[in-house]
Amino acid sequence: MKKQIRLNGFTMNTVAPHSPGLWRHEADQGVRHGDLDYWLDLAKLLEAGKFDGMFLADVLGIYDVYKDGPETSIEHAVQVPLHNPLLQISAMAAATKHLGFAATYSATYAEPYKLARDFSTLDHLTKGRVAWNIVTSYLKSEAVNLGLANQIEHDRRYERADEYMDVVYKLWEHSWEEDAVKADVETGVYADPKKVHPVNHEGEFFSVPGMHVVEPSPQRTPVLFQAGASEKGRAFAAKHAEALFTTIASNLEELKSFTADIRRRAAEAGRNPEDIKIFPGIVPVVGRTESEAKEKYETLLSHVSYEGTLSMLSGHTGIDFSGYDPDQYVENIRTDASHGFLQKYTVESTSRRWTVREAVLHHGLGIGATKVIGTPEQVADALESMANEGDADGFNIIQAHSPGTFEDFIELVVPVLQERGSFRKEYEASTLRENLFGKGSPRIPENHPAKRMASLSQSRI
Amino acid sequence: MKKQIRLNGFTMNTVAPHSPGLWRHEADQGVRHGDLDYWLDLAKLLEAGKFDGMFLADVLGIYDVYKDGPETSIEHAVQVPLHNPLLQISAMAAATKHLGFAATYSATYAEPYKLARDFSTLDHLTKGRVAWNIVTSYLKSEAVNLGLANQIEHDRRYERADEYMDVVYKLWEHSWEEDAVKADVETGVYADPKKVHPVNHEGEFFSVPGMHVVEPSPQRTPVLFQAGASEKGRAFAAKHAEALFTTIASNLEELKSFTADIRRRAAEAGRNPEDIKIFPGIVPVVGRTESEAKEKYETLLSHVSYEGTLSMLSGHTGIDFSGYDPDQYVENIRTDASHGFLQKYTVESTSRRWTVREAVLHHGLGIGATKVIGTPEQVADALESMANEGDADGFNIIQAHSPGTFEDFIELVVPVLQERGSFRKEYEASTLRENLFGKGSPRIPENHPAKRMASLSQSRI
Repeated sequence: MKKQIRLNGFTMNTVAPHSPGLWRHEADQGVRHGDLDYWLDLAKLLEAGKFDGMFLADVLGIYDVYKDGPETSIEHAVQVPLHNPLLQISAMAAATKHLGFAATYSATYAEPYKLARDFSTLDHLTKGRVAWNIVTSYLKSEAVNLGLANQIEHDRRYERADEYMDVVYKLWEHSWEEDAVKADVETGVYADPKKVHPVNHEGEFFSVPGMHVVEPSPQRTPVLFQAGASEKGRAFAAKHAEALFTTIASNLEELKSFTADIRRRAAEAGRNPEDIKIFPGIVPVVGRTESEAKEKYETLLSHVSYEGTLSMLSGHTGIDFSGYDPDQYVENIRTDASHGFLQKYTVESTSRRWTVREAVLHHGLGIGATKVIGTPEQVADALESMANEGDADGFNIIQAHSPGTFEDFIELVVPVLQERGSFRKEYEASTLRENLFGKGSPRIPENHPAKRMASLSQSRI
Repeated sequence: MKKQIRLNGFTMNTVAPHSPGLWRHEADQGVRHGDLDYWLDLAKLLEAGKFDGMFLADVLGIYDVYKDGPETSIEHAVQVPLHNPLLQISAMAAATKHLGFAATYSATYAEPYKLARDFSTLDHLTKGRVAWNIVTSYLKSEAVNLGLANQIEHDRRYERADEYMDVVYKLWEHSWEEDAVKADVETGVYADPKKVHPVNHEGEFFSVPGMHVVEPSPQRTPVLFQAGASEKGRAFAAKHAEALFTTIASNLEELKSFTADIRRRAAEAGRNPEDIKIFPGIVPVVGRTESEAKEKYETLLSHVSYEGTLSMLSGHTGIDFSGYDPDQYVENIRTDASHGFLQKYTVESTSRRWTVREAVLHHGLGIGATKVIGTPEQVADALESMANEGDADGFNIIQAHSPGTFEDFIELVVPVLQERGSFRKEYEASTLRENLFGKGSPRIPENHPAKRMASLSQSRI
C-alpha cells in the first residue's frame, strides 16, 4: 500500500487568515467569517474532500510592531477582526460526521483546569473529533491586554507549557477511571467516587488539587498539534506533539532535514518516530493547464496587500519593517533574535537572495508557505514527492483565498491522489485520532508522556 | 394589550442540572447532555414553544462542603460531570432562528479582554441572540483549581466585577465606531483605523490598553443577565442587569417586595424601572387534571436524591449538612454568613416551619424554586398572577426532569397563555434584546452605564 497522505484545511476565524489583501479577490468569502453558514459550508466542503481536519489558527492580539502601531493591520484586515476559534466548532460538528477540528488555544492565557474542561466538552460534542493546537503565544499585544505587564520570555513560556501539559494529562487521562461512570438507575449511583481521583498537582507554575469535572470523552486527550520551530519548540514537540505543522522547509532537502530531526528527537523522547505526523503548510495553486495555474498565481499575487503583509511580517518577527528599503536584501537585516520567518529568506537557506519586496510577496500568500503551482498531476507529483522522499505525513492546505483554494484542490487534486492510491476515498474511522493514526483506539498511545506518568491512584498509595 | 410574559428554559450542561436524582426518572434524557443531538432537540423544543431563550447555568467546580469532600456529589451526579456551557451554542443557533442563549461565564476566572471576544464571537454567530449571565463564582473548589490560593471575598468580588463591566463596556460599545468597517474592495481599506479606539483602561484590578479584536456585532453588548440576591448583588444588578433571575421569592408577597425593591434601585441608578426584566424561577408540574398533576409531583419527589440534595445545599450555603438531624428545624441552624438559600426555609420568610427534610426535598426539585402544580389553566393563572400582581416580567422554567418539564409546559400551558393573550404566538424579532424589550434596536439602551460612559474618542481629546 502506498504511503497515505493526510490533509488539513488551514484557516482562522478572520477576514483574510494568512494572505493579507486577498479578501479583495472577487471569489473570496472571508468577509462572511462571522456567519455560521460560512463555517458550515467550509466544513462540508472539507469533509466532501475527505480531509482529516480543519485547522483553526489563532492569536489573541493585534499585530502592532509595524510603524509602532496597529493601524496598518486594522486597515488591511491583517488577522483583525479576529473571532474566537472554538465557538463555531459544534455547529460544524453537527453538519459533518468525520471531519476533525484542530483548534488553537493558548496555554499562556487559560488556566489548565479550564482548558481541560473546554476540550473535554468539545470531544464529547464532536464524538472524538477534536485536536488542540498548543501555542504559548508570542505577541506582546496579547500579554498586555491579558493582565501581564509584559510577555513571558520565550524559553520560560515553554517550561511553563511543559508543566501545563502535566496538569492537563492528569486531568484527561488519570482523574476518571475508565469505568467510573455507572449511570445505574437501580442503585442510584451515577459515578463511583472511588474511581474519580483528585490530581493533586502542586508545581512551580500551577496548583490544581481537584479532579477533572468531565468524565472520559471518546479521545480523552485531544489530538495534540503543535508548531514549534525553535530549539525549545522542537524539544517540546518531540515530547508532546502528535501532529506538527511547519512552514520552515522551503525545499525538499530542508524538509528531509526537518522531518529527520523531528523523528530522531521523538525516538530520543521514548516515542516511535512515526508517532508524530508532520504537516508542512503548502499553498496549492491549481489549473487545468500549467498556464492557467500560472495565471491564477499571478492574479492571486496581484491581490496581496504589500503594506498589510509588512505589518504581518513585522508582527511575526518583532522587527518593524517600515524602515527597510523594498530592494534591500533580507539577509542583511541583522537582529539579535532568532526568527524562523526571516531565516527562510536568506541565501543560506534557499540558495538565492531575497529582497524585502520578494519576501513580502512570498509571505503574503499563505504566510510564506511553499507554493505548489501547476496542473492537478503536477501538484499531486509534488505532494507525493514531499511525502515519499521528504517524509512528510501530509499537508496543511493554506488558503490564498477562501474557499477557492480548498475548492480547487478538492475538485482537481484530491481525485488524482485518490486514483493513485495516495489518499483515502472513504474515512477509515469516525474519530480524528483513528483517521490520523489508523483504526484501533481513539486514545493517545501508551508510550506518550500523557500515559506514562504514574496513574494517580497508584501515586496516592 | 395584556402584559406579555417572557419565558426562558433554565438548564445546565450536566446530567441532572437542578434536581439531584431526577436523572433516574424513566423519561429523563439528561445522561445524553454530552451529545449534540440532545441540545439540538432541546433548542428546537424551546423555539417551538416561542421561548425567549435557553438559560445555561454553570459553576467551575464540584460541591465538596458536604462531609468535607466531593464524593457525594460525584456519586449522585450533583452538577458533575459538568461541561462548558458555551460550546454547544453555535450548533443550537444553526438549528434555530429566534431562540436566545443566555450563558453563564464567570467574571472572576476569565480576563475581560478574552470574555469580550468570546461573547462578540457568539453574538456574530447567533446574529444577535446571545446573553451573558454574569457571575462572580462562589465555590472555593473553583478558586483553588483556577490558580487562587482561596476565593476572593464576596463583596470584593463585586467591586472587581464592577470594574470588569467597565472594561467590557469599553470594548463592546466604545472601541469600534459603528461605521469603522468599510470592506471597500476599491480602496483596499477593510476598516478605518481612525474609527477603532484603544480602550486605555487602567484600573485597580485590570489593565487593558488595546482595542477590541472584534468588530461590532448585532447586539454589541450581549443581553446582561444576573442573579444577585445579596445587598451588593442587588446593587450590582440594579446598575448592570437587563434581566434578573431569582429563586428568592416563595410567595406573591415576597415577589412583590422583591420586584419593587429592584425597580426602585434601578430608578435610583438612573435607569427605567422596566429596564430590568425580572424572571423568578419556577418548576411547573402540569397535568390534564389536578390529580394527575399531583401524582406527577409525587413521582418526581420520589426521585429526588436526598443525599445528593444535601450535598448541593451544603455547596450552596457553605454549611456541611451532614451533622443535622432531618427532623430539626432549619431556622435553628445558626451561621454567621448570610445564606439566601436558607433564609427561604425560616418561619420569618414563609410563615411556616421547615424541617431539614422538608427543605431538602423542596430544594431537590429545581433548587428550591416555587413549584407550580396543577392543570394548564391553574398554572397559567398562577403565572399571570405573579406577572400582573407580583410584577414579574416572565419566568425561568426550571426542569424537574429533562426535557419532560419543558415538553409538558410547552404542550399544555403555552397554548393557554397564548389563548389568553399573555404570551406571544410568533416571535416579534430575531435578536434576543428585541424579543425581550420590543422591536426597535438590538442595542443596549442609552441610559445604561454601558452607554453612559464618555465615548473613548471624546475622552482622548
